[in-house]
Amino acid sequence: MWTLYQFPLCPFSRKVRIALAEKNVDFALELEYPWARSDRLLGLNQAGQTPVLAGEKPGPLVHSQAICEYFEETVEKAPLLGSGSAARAEVRRLTAWFDEKCYAEATNPLLLERMYKRVVLRQPPEARTLRAASQAVALHLDRIEALLGERRWLAGATFSLADVAAFAQLSVADYLGGLGFSGYPDTKQWYSAVKSRPSVRRLLPDRMEGLVPPPHYDKLDF
Amino acid sequence: MWTLYQFPLCPFSRKVRIALAEKNVDFALELEYPWARSDRLLGLNQAGQTPVLAGEKPGPLVHSQAICEYFEETVEKAPLLGSGSAARAEVRRLTAWFDEKCYAEATNPLLLERMYKRVVLRQPPEARTLRAASQAVALHLDRIEALLGERRWLAGATFSLADVAAFAQLSVADYLGGLGFSGYPDTKQWYSAVKSRPSVRRLLPDRMEGLVPPPHYDKLDF
Repeated sequence: MWTLYQFPLCPFSRKVRIALAEKNVDFALELEYPWARSDRLLGLNQAGQTPVLAGEKPGPLVHSQAICEYFEETVEKAPLLGSGSAARAEVRRLTAWFDEKCYAEATNPLLLERMYKRVVLRQPPEARTLRAASQAVALHLDRIEALLGERRWLAGATFSLADVAAFAQLSVADYLGGLGFSGYPDTKQWYSAVKSRPSVRRLLPDRMEGLVPPPHYDKLDF
Repeated sequence: MWTLYQFPLCPFSRKVRIALAEKNVDFALELEYPWARSDRLLGLNQAGQTPVLAGEKPGPLVHSQAICEYFEETVEKAPLLGSGSAARAEVRRLTAWFDEKCYAEATNPLLLERMYKRVVLRQPPEARTLRAASQAVALHLDRIEALLGERRWLAGATFSLADVAAFAQLSVADYLGGLGFSGYPDTKQWYSAVKSRPSVRRLLPDRMEGLVPPPHYDKLDF
């Protein structure tokens, strides 16, 4: 069986967990905190980053997009990249937007200030960085609300890896108390629809040691 | 015909230019500096980033990896992702390594200190950031030298998008005077082999306004 090396608040681990569950690929979970730089994780991935998927051939598979593309090519069930090259280009564009831009501007600063400083460094968060992250979250919600004005799902008419990637980032922000839907009715409905998928519900009970999410975090009615 | 919106020192524009040339896809170039935030670029890509490929259906195509994957799917000539899902996972892992890690740790700080500060802000570079970037370049050369101990090209026996992505990052560092091969004989040979490809030779005469590269930059014997 595959084993996914991950930690509960890693958005890229979440992306892979949801994608694999959509495709009915079985996997076990192993906890790895990248900042601990364990020999095990470095042996699997010299970049020292989660997620890594190992234990079956041709593992270890490294990098969330490489892992998702691999299973898109090898498992027919539940296509997540869409049908046709043009549709796939749009899914990949939006997936990269959330993986790179939303992560760099919103999720990563929130993780640094509200998780890493609290759990690892035992320092208070910096208010200025938190404000900038919160503005970035709003900017991404604006973008999602605009997309959903034209489309049922983020990249088009069907659920795709773009929805998975977006939810993976936003659900980490939500866990850290950095997400609210006031003024974003379509986005709230979309978030609720993603949240109620069996692939997603499986990861909502997970907790990061030393950090309690807000009460609404794992509720379907939030 | 396709038009690529790019600027000479954008490593992701270089990646797309080399990949398209390998595949014999014709395209014109249009200059866009992301920091100028032109209406034209923002109209093509809300992220305001280069590269964007437009002018043919189903454009505009946005994000270097989405563009490369699109042409990998639609143009048979010169496969750049390798053959088989396992090989493609390895190409994608290494491509992401250079696109993300090498860019964040080495190319982007060099671009900030030696291009943006000089050409746009008219400020001197910060020595500490330059030192860290230079250490990061060395770390990536170490990694490449190790890979080339086992393989002819970075992801295996054939030239791939991983070579393109790595060259795209390193050639920008080279333009900015941040690359040397002392102690890296295999990497120097690999770099020379990539540099001599027609797809790459086409972009070496390009110059960034206000910045002159070192004399060896576009020489095949360097």
